[in-house]
Amino acid sequence: MKYFQTWTGGCSLNEKIIQEFPADVPGNIQLDYAKANGFADVNWMDNCTKFQELEDYTWFYRSELKYEKKPGDRIYFVTLGIEYEYDVLLNGKKILHHIGMFSKAEADITDELQNGNLMEVYIYPHPKRPGALDGRQQVDQSCKPAVEYGWDWHPRLLVSGIWEETYIETRNNDFITACSCSYVLSDDLKNADILFEISCLEETVIEIYDMTGEQVYYGTDPHIHLENIHLWWCCGQGEAYLYHWKVRSQFDSREGRIGFREIRLVMNEGTWEEPSSFPKSRSFPPATIELNGRRIFVKGSNWVNPEIFTGTITRETYHQQIVLAKEANMNLLRCWGGAIVNKDSFFEICDEMGMMVWQEFPLACNNYIGTPAYLKVLEQEASAIILRLKQHPCLVLWCGGNELFNKWSKMTDQSLALRLLNKLCYELDPKTPFLMTSPLSGMAHGGYIFYDPQIDESVFETVRKCRFTAYCEFGIPSITEMEQLRTIFPEELADHPQPKTAWELHHGYGAWGHAGEDAWICFGIIDKIFGKQICFADYIEKSQWLQCEGLKCIFEEARRQKPHCSMAVNWCFNEPWITAAGQSIIGYPCHPKKAYYAVRDALRPVMPSARIEHFSFVAGEMLTAELWMLNDSCEEVEDTVRVFLFVDETKKHILDWNTGIVPANTNRRGHKLQIELPFSSAQSVTLLLESEAGSSMYRLLMLEAEKEEIPANALNM
Amino acid sequence: MKYFQTWTGGCSLNEKIIQEFPADVPGNIQLDYAKANGFADVNWMDNCTKFQELEDYTWFYRSELKYEKKPGDRIYFVTLGIEYEYDVLLNGKKILHHIGMFSKAEADITDELQNGNLMEVYIYPHPKRPGALDGRQQVDQSCKPAVEYGWDWHPRLLVSGIWEETYIETRNNDFITACSCSYVLSDDLKNADILFEISCLEETVIEIYDMTGEQVYYGTDPHIHLENIHLWWCCGQGEAYLYHWKVRSQFDSREGRIGFREIRLVMNEGTWEEPSSFPKSRSFPPATIELNGRRIFVKGSNWVNPEIFTGTITRETYHQQIVLAKEANMNLLRCWGGAIVNKDSFFEICDEMGMMVWQEFPLACNNYIGTPAYLKVLEQEASAIILRLKQHPCLVLWCGGNELFNKWSKMTDQSLALRLLNKLCYELDPKTPFLMTSPLSGMAHGGYIFYDPQIDESVFETVRKCRFTAYCEFGIPSITEMEQLRTIFPEELADHPQPKTAWELHHGYGAWGHAGEDAWICFGIIDKIFGKQICFADYIEKSQWLQCEGLKCIFEEARRQKPHCSMAVNWCFNEPWITAAGQSIIGYPCHPKKAYYAVRDALRPVMPSARIEHFSFVAGEMLTAELWMLNDSCEEVEDTVRVFLFVDETKKHILDWNTGIVPANTNRRGHKLQIELPFSSAQSVTLLLESEAGSSMYRLLMLEAEKEEIPANALNM
Repeated sequence: MKYFQTWTGGCSLNEKIIQEFPADVPGNIQLDYAKANGFADVNWMDNCTKFQELEDYTWFYRSELKYEKKPGDRIYFVTLGIEYEYDVLLNGKKILHHIGMFSKAEADITDELQNGNLMEVYIYPHPKRPGALDGRQQVDQSCKPAVEYGWDWHPRLLVSGIWEETYIETRNNDFITACSCSYVLSDDLKNADILFEISCLEETVIEIYDMTGEQVYYGTDPHIHLENIHLWWCCGQGEAYLYHWKVRSQFDSREGRIGFREIRLVMNEGTWEEPSSFPKSRSFPPATIELNGRRIFVKGSNWVNPEIFTGTITRETYHQQIVLAKEANMNLLRCWGGAIVNKDSFFEICDEMGMMVWQEFPLACNNYIGTPAYLKVLEQEASAIILRLKQHPCLVLWCGGNELFNKWSKMTDQSLALRLLNKLCYELDPKTPFLMTSPLSGMAHGGYIFYDPQIDESVFETVRKCRFTAYCEFGIPSITEMEQLRTIFPEELADHPQPKTAWELHHGYGAWGHAGEDAWICFGIIDKIFGKQICFADYIEKSQWLQCEGLKCIFEEARRQKPHCSMAVNWCFNEPWITAAGQSIIGYPCHPKKAYYAVRDALRPVMPSARIEHFSFVAGEMLTAELWMLNDSCEEVEDTVRVFLFVDETKKHILDWNTGIVPANTNRRGHKLQIELPFSSAQSVTLLLESEAGSSMYRLLMLEAEKEEIPANALNM
Repeated sequence: MKYFQTWTGGCSLNEKIIQEFPADVPGNIQLDYAKANGFADVNWMDNCTKFQELEDYTWFYRSELKYEKKPGDRIYFVTLGIEYEYDVLLNGKKILHHIGMFSKAEADITDELQNGNLMEVYIYPHPKRPGALDGRQQVDQSCKPAVEYGWDWHPRLLVSGIWEETYIETRNNDFITACSCSYVLSDDLKNADILFEISCLEETVIEIYDMTGEQVYYGTDPHIHLENIHLWWCCGQGEAYLYHWKVRSQFDSREGRIGFREIRLVMNEGTWEEPSSFPKSRSFPPATIELNGRRIFVKGSNWVNPEIFTGTITRETYHQQIVLAKEANMNLLRCWGGAIVNKDSFFEICDEMGMMVWQEFPLACNNYIGTPAYLKVLEQEASAIILRLKQHPCLVLWCGGNELFNKWSKMTDQSLALRLLNKLCYELDPKTPFLMTSPLSGMAHGGYIFYDPQIDESVFETVRKCRFTAYCEFGIPSITEMEQLRTIFPEELADHPQPKTAWELHHGYGAWGHAGEDAWICFGIIDKIFGKQICFADYIEKSQWLQCEGLKCIFEEARRQKPHCSMAVNWCFNEPWITAAGQSIIGYPCHPKKAYYAVRDALRPVMPSARIEHFSFVAGEMLTAELWMLNDSCEEVEDTVRVFLFVDETKKHILDWNTGIVPANTNRRGHKLQIELPFSSAQSVTLLLESEAGSSMYRLLMLEAEKEEIPANALNM
């Protein structure tokens, strides 16, 4: 039953009301204001900057509450989340003050209700630490998403408001105040002892159904023993089996799902042997997810807010994108600490699809000093997050936040905020692994470009030499397709990128505040690799080529480094608005880029793969490539890989390799090919590996041989 | 008042009493048994093995308790520590069952007291995990010192009993049930806000005195503001200033001390800059102790049990040895996790002397699986340890235990036991840094020999190339002096070391169970470096030479690597019995070895030092050495270092170096000397650095030049 018909929003500055307007709940009040004031699409040109003048406003919501209470009813105002600090007033009386957007807040309003009621929510101005410069450090004493304060793919745009479900609840004697369900699996993972913890003054009945709809339990005993259970598996490893439960009192009910699974973070194979000689340090921390006793190679991507206006995110927003992740053969999304902690529907969909989730707390790239005030809010928010999400089988990893142990953050293992998070996860969800941050020792973040001028190497050269236990972030930018660019820039500007225009705001230039630098449009890198291009369309095409081949190279190399390596998670999956250039593989709102398809190819469970020494070759040079058969599946495979080289229109057969039997979840290394490239004026060569499992193509650059470099005998051919 | 006059001990096996005998309380029941049965000195030959047949005994203590209670008295039995699991019975009725030797246990016995009373303590057999092999893994589900189960310098000898003070306490209304004191310092560290938490039914008075005996507070208010406080400093950095407090009710009182200080673990200088390029991992965890805002270079040693029979340790045992550590210019003792957590007097002495303490919980070199039973005892024991010790200013570092993240232990950051310890330290003592284990990334343990045949290097070559943030364990063994050897072996055996004799039991051979290997006697290394020796006395002398020069080399090199390096802590300081060969620098019971004096020299606050490339040279070769002036003091220094080379009786002046002004807590690098060694038949050369701050001598090996290696022009000289 809906007790609030409509909401009115409003804003004030220096206690003076500026305006009132209709408001969507849930939503973001700044978006309501923008609609009322005719702001055009936030993606267009520099429209996003118009929100900056609203930053120091105080906002409010008002609604009439119609409620006829019966004797004995206890009536509660409940909100699942309001961003960020707020008061709730009923008929002019403050009934609630709360700081923090991820914790539920409620107030007993029974004694305040009248015949007609005015419910008001006052939202304080956005937190900005006094003394902080504009940017993410303003939020380093708050649990608000740091990304709102500006990032290299997110404009500075601070939002707030009633972003989660907010309602009136009637609590009679049969009201189920709390209901949660936990389980212990037998050592052989075949049986489960389930415990329901139900708080209700009247008797409740519990029902459990399996996925066929068959009832496997009905009764009032909260201790339930189930035999021969189906386990929940992640994508590619089995069925994401979910049981469905209902708890009912006379007029109230709760329902939920159980996915039985055991999750551990275990040492990567071989890492106990390092370091090998004295003086010796510790072995690398564990980075391998073990699900139901099986080591899983993580293939995934970094998930960021799919909308700037996070209050508008719906189940459908999530669903479209998670389907794409699953279709790209991914099995994990890393929910990055700079973003929101997603709404329930995100985790419900991940449960259903077998998509594992690495969940970070809202800390990113800052030094969150452990002041009493900050630790108090963090404890409240983190506890709420853990208790809300720990029931989801998809939730496989808690993490304190992003890149906190690097010099741009300067937190350490001694930081009280991270010691507190470790403590809370231990107390509330000890069975789920906890990392203080990412990366830890042995794990890696970056790079974020195809070619690094500092070391004069492309990712083809760099990653092959690396030996990390987990690649948790890596990215290659591309320039956004012209069709998309024309939705954010007028044609003239879309065709002529330049710094100090809206191109900069949309991250084509000046990433990380280095004004004038051409990140993420990366003309310099394209010029270096391909030479000067004739027109902008050529730059777009080349950047997309680099993103496709670069991401394939890193993903496949990480897979080849298994089992020493256990994770490949690119930066990043999606984006919250239309960037002009960037690392995401899904453009806003849900537009797969070419790189998406390249990644999808590189993550197929069974596939032939080639470790190629370089991206660019000179005609006549030797192309060296090592053959591999990658197998992440639970089945053994045997295949024949047929290798071809395409130059111009010619398809040349190089050799056939029978892989022999490749056991489940194992890779097989094959021959090292030495292919002499012809003297051709073709600008690319393509290495093609065909097999029953499918084919893999690598499109490499071939540069014209400089005359003096051509050996005499070649010229004599 | 002493309510127990004497204690009788006894033992039983399979519920049959074997024997009764007088018992010392506090003490160890096995030692009482040994005395009653005429066991000779445990150090002699294989006497220690006689205790193995007692391992599965049940032990008991009995005493008559005389107590005349007055109406209103509440009478308690209190023990500060009984090893390890026990029942306490009064007049045949069980009043207490307890597991854990580091937690106080008590029972209200008021209603059980009669005119004559029999107090009994039953000690369960030593914990041994079913299925574990003999050795430390037997104790991997207990909080008993792992070292008792055998180590490479400690025989297997399991002890138990009433090892700490145990008494009867009368608690009237004015009994002070609890009394603790904490403080918060102002940002400038000049003022303190002190809070006493006192639990007493009657009013209490608080007095505080400074070190001159002057009263600085008298009153009943537990919130006390003190201005212009004196800070507590560690050795070498200032005075270990302690205030003395008393809390009194009418008939009861408590007293204690406060040392005002701020302790942090901060990043080593330069470590934020690493790693420098992508893909990048985290920066090393912090390993620099900052005391009162000043970075301290830690010079210390690893402390182990000073007695096998830990119940016999007294304040005097501790005092003698800590004085030696202070005189050796040390400022920290690492209380290693395999040992006991020391009695209060250890920490009181460290408080007084400014000796910082790195305290580990009782976990070492095992995988302590987080079963509910283990976690319960660990929580109780760790909480008791933290609450008992956190008041001591000397306590600067909590650590989960020894080498838990290495392959011989196989614990990880995910281990529940270590996550629990983080939680407890966070909750009970958040201002003191906490490490899960040692070593962490960047920190190093080992090696433990002068020359490593695996890499064909001596410590002179190895350590110079290392770049660790902290050297927390490193050691060089020497053979024990003949005079000492004759106290444990008959003359014939003392002169003729052999495996499969008591030499093996005393760690001359077969360390770590590698039967037949000559660790720690290290004949092989001596033969390799010096050639075959004629008699055993020569081996003793050579091994001591290596221990002296090796430890000096490592300590001084670690100091030269400051500020990237912040700690040099050798393995180990003391030993619990007379070993035949080993790494300690203080022999049992308190006998400084030659290496002690070498270390003392290498740790002088201000000293000239030389980075010498090798230990052994060939006559006629070039000796390369870099000059340094080391300054850990709080004063700037300026000095002239005069360099001499001794060969045979000749003292050759090489050069003088004026160091210029070397600021406080800073080192200065000087010239790199190239000294051509003469063609001499001398077996050693000595490099002597003289300065006002004192002189440093390095005694290096010189080998005879092989004829064919002598250059022609040298022969013509």
